[in-house]
Amino acid sequence: MALTTAQFVHEFEDNALALFADDLQKLSPQQQYQALAVTVKRYYAKDWATTKDHYDRTQQKQVYYFSIEFLPGRLLASNLLNLGIKATVESGLHQLGLDPAKIYAQEADPGLGNGGLGRLAAAFLDSMASIGMAGNGNGIRYQYGLFQQRFVDGYQVELPDDWLRDPDMWETRKENRAVIVKYGGQVELRPRPNGSLQAIYHDTDDVLAVPYDTPMVGYHTGVVNTLRLWRAETVPGRVHNLAEKARVNQITQILYPDDSDSAGRELRLRQEYFFVSAGIQSIVTHFKRFHSDLAVLPHFVAIHINDTHPAMAVLELMRILLDEEEMSWDQAWGVTVATMSYTNHTLMTEALESWPQSMFEALLPRLFQIAQEVDRRFRLAYTRRYGELLINNAAPLANGQLRMAFLAVIGSHSVNGVAKLHSELLKQSVLKDLYQIFPERFRNETNGITQRRWVQLADPALANLIDQKIGSAWRRDPLQLTQLRQFENDESFLRALLAAKHQNKLRLADLIQRQLGLTVAPSAMFDV
Amino acid sequence: MALTTAQFVHEFEDNALALFADDLQKLSPQQQYQALAVTVKRYYAKDWATTKDHYDRTQQKQVYYFSIEFLPGRLLASNLLNLGIKATVESGLHQLGLDPAKIYAQEADPGLGNGGLGRLAAAFLDSMASIGMAGNGNGIRYQYGLFQQRFVDGYQVELPDDWLRDPDMWETRKENRAVIVKYGGQVELRPRPNGSLQAIYHDTDDVLAVPYDTPMVGYHTGVVNTLRLWRAETVPGRVHNLAEKARVNQITQILYPDDSDSAGRELRLRQEYFFVSAGIQSIVTHFKRFHSDLAVLPHFVAIHINDTHPAMAVLELMRILLDEEEMSWDQAWGVTVATMSYTNHTLMTEALESWPQSMFEALLPRLFQIAQEVDRRFRLAYTRRYGELLINNAAPLANGQLRMAFLAVIGSHSVNGVAKLHSELLKQSVLKDLYQIFPERFRNETNGITQRRWVQLADPALANLIDQKIGSAWRRDPLQLTQLRQFENDESFLRALLAAKHQNKLRLADLIQRQLGLTVAPSAMFDV
Repeated sequence: MALTTAQFVHEFEDNALALFADDLQKLSPQQQYQALAVTVKRYYAKDWATTKDHYDRTQQKQVYYFSIEFLPGRLLASNLLNLGIKATVESGLHQLGLDPAKIYAQEADPGLGNGGLGRLAAAFLDSMASIGMAGNGNGIRYQYGLFQQRFVDGYQVELPDDWLRDPDMWETRKENRAVIVKYGGQVELRPRPNGSLQAIYHDTDDVLAVPYDTPMVGYHTGVVNTLRLWRAETVPGRVHNLAEKARVNQITQILYPDDSDSAGRELRLRQEYFFVSAGIQSIVTHFKRFHSDLAVLPHFVAIHINDTHPAMAVLELMRILLDEEEMSWDQAWGVTVATMSYTNHTLMTEALESWPQSMFEALLPRLFQIAQEVDRRFRLAYTRRYGELLINNAAPLANGQLRMAFLAVIGSHSVNGVAKLHSELLKQSVLKDLYQIFPERFRNETNGITQRRWVQLADPALANLIDQKIGSAWRRDPLQLTQLRQFENDESFLRALLAAKHQNKLRLADLIQRQLGLTVAPSAMFDV
Repeated sequence: MALTTAQFVHEFEDNALALFADDLQKLSPQQQYQALAVTVKRYYAKDWATTKDHYDRTQQKQVYYFSIEFLPGRLLASNLLNLGIKATVESGLHQLGLDPAKIYAQEADPGLGNGGLGRLAAAFLDSMASIGMAGNGNGIRYQYGLFQQRFVDGYQVELPDDWLRDPDMWETRKENRAVIVKYGGQVELRPRPNGSLQAIYHDTDDVLAVPYDTPMVGYHTGVVNTLRLWRAETVPGRVHNLAEKARVNQITQILYPDDSDSAGRELRLRQEYFFVSAGIQSIVTHFKRFHSDLAVLPHFVAIHINDTHPAMAVLELMRILLDEEEMSWDQAWGVTVATMSYTNHTLMTEALESWPQSMFEALLPRLFQIAQEVDRRFRLAYTRRYGELLINNAAPLANGQLRMAFLAVIGSHSVNGVAKLHSELLKQSVLKDLYQIFPERFRNETNGITQRRWVQLADPALANLIDQKIGSAWRRDPLQLTQLRQFENDESFLRALLAAKHQNKLRLADLIQRQLGLTVAPSAMFDV
């Protein structure tokens, strides 16, 4: 976008005054950060609105990426980079006597993930926005990120990651898009005049899911996609004492609650259904604003299941298609499989998520009925051809457990691992039985990283060196980086590369010194 | 302020887009309210900054009104009225096809008070801003307002007033003005070289108090004063598990926690010390930016104790003057009494707040030492003249109780009731012994209401009628209303007055019909 330094300085000062009723110079670095974020938010607001309008008008196919974790990292510098105004803003900050790095450091790293799973999810969203694909994230707005375990006076203590202490400046609460998620109760199946069954829910335990939308700004594309995270609240107007409120708030309180006991396991199950149900309901509601027939859903919507936590999306979409849209089973199943796809993350059988049937049935009685029917039909369709042993090893329900990875494969049209070798091994190990039945579903997607965050933002010296050698087209098109091969024996290039790396090692050594009080030699090899 | 309809419409649309990345017309009424509030916030931001600067530059005497309740009511319409832009904004809203009343109704009534005590406090702040007096509020930012008791299926249930579900659009979090409030622990008194005693605190239980500032916009004065409300948080970086966090959050969670047991009583005591200590610390810190000598504090600062909940302000200011400013007792006491004043709200002895000495001493050991010294010196000074019986009835400490009303009178230079009769009865009943000792301290302040909210906003028909008869000067100067006396037998005026009242009765009947389903005759006499 076009922005002059003078214009930025004026708007930044104006927003600082509006927010804190004080001169920019008198504010704390945290307040300066907040005022800067509000300023940047105003720069992409129109693009965000336009992107949503455009998708609605053109009915471009939307991808919804369901994940229990998203690790986008701090967004300020990344948004500035992607909007193409980082240099302008930084020159404005310098003009005001402010240090950009100090302001960037004020932003809390969103406590929405733990590791690779969440980083992958965030990288996908960043990439989709940067190639102009309509890609949305769907997850949980955790109040606290992952707990750190630390020893104090010989005792192990928990440090909750209180990342929302100062407000998240990017999120927008959309109270008007809230939906109700229902747990427990009883399901009554009452015959409809047309012979189908109507599911009526009694005595459910209802929780309000309120979406918080965070923009995913594309790199120089003008596209701003949406990461939608759900927060659990009590349903307004219903009776709630503080204990009930606390029980509801717990659903989105922490990432990975302690699941060493049954209550913790149940809370995790509650979390998973929470963001899955809210997400699917929200997708269907939006879709129905433009289409009357859910049969065409897969033409306009793709739902991706990132690891097994959202695997019950298969059951939840079935529930809505059957119970609310009154589709037949076969039609609903066709729509569901055509809509869903799944990324598997583990090669270890013992790490595959499964739920005790009794727990699942008590918390999600209607979903369990649907899971039973999926299981029954799966066994009916394939037992004769593949034999009872194989089918028993691959069916969703067995040994008193509901096996989420198998459900995800059976309910999806496409399944992948995260790298070539991983995808190959899936076919030979944890998913080998299902691979025999559905070989056409298995494919590979090697998951990369985004060079914007990890080279352009994290390593400006390297990025500049690359620019000098092959121009800056790689910043939009990472495949251009293959051109660097021609310099693999170029002495001066290699020397410059080492110098750039050394700068980073000096920075790391300095950080280690400041945070841990340890002196390390920058000439040593660091393995981090 | 000068504002055209076109300018307002443009800025409102602009802010709606910046906040929600959507067209104003597509937003929910709640979102429209939020966008409107942000727009209005930008209109008074400069006045707020200028007011603070002006007070700092001129060192105008500041009033700090300490109250456990503030009931400002919804602020949007009131801010528009006071800024003089209500008609402009409403015409802009109509132009956009929006209904001002519907948008105003989206604002949650701040759950910061229960009744007269809080309304009085808010009316004082409103009045001070409207006559250009430097008046600040100091209280607690309760997450939940007063619980409503309701019967559901024959059981009594609690309905917490969840007023912060949608964000409070007026408050500004000031993380850089946070202070630490200390509870419990032990106090060691160590002699200083100069012979005074230095109080050293060990093993205290520390809580972070973070201020949230809300503007109090004066009526057509350009003055914007500040209501500062404190929120309890854990101290960053210290070890806290979720249970500890919950215990800290509890301090500012609800107005009037259940005090039927000792834990509830202690929580209340914790709340009171919380906002008193945070407020006094914040006042002293601000004062010391401009003055090196606390001895002149009463020339620049007045602290008002609204009912007994903040009465320990006397002890907390003493603590800071003695322990941190190293004043002698006599000097500190002189400064404290000259700074403090007190409004008594009750004529019933049994309603006067008192704390078991054991509870107070355990939670606030240093304050208790100071209370003991206040008590000792009070007895020493007055027993000979007034006799042991009277002094025992009036001293801060007796019968194992710390009596907060008596402490407030002894520690203040001015004491008042809320109306003439009330103030007279105080001298004859609950405070009669202290009145004998300090007759010069007792005075009366009849507490009025603000005609801005209760006539101009709540009853526009009546306000217009008054304008027609005596002009609009009463809107700034309520004493002008005495001019209405000349119309007390004016038939046409009385008829118009009845017609205006009838309009309100029709509105009330309509509300009763909608909310309770009861039909009432507007011609009946309503007693509400």
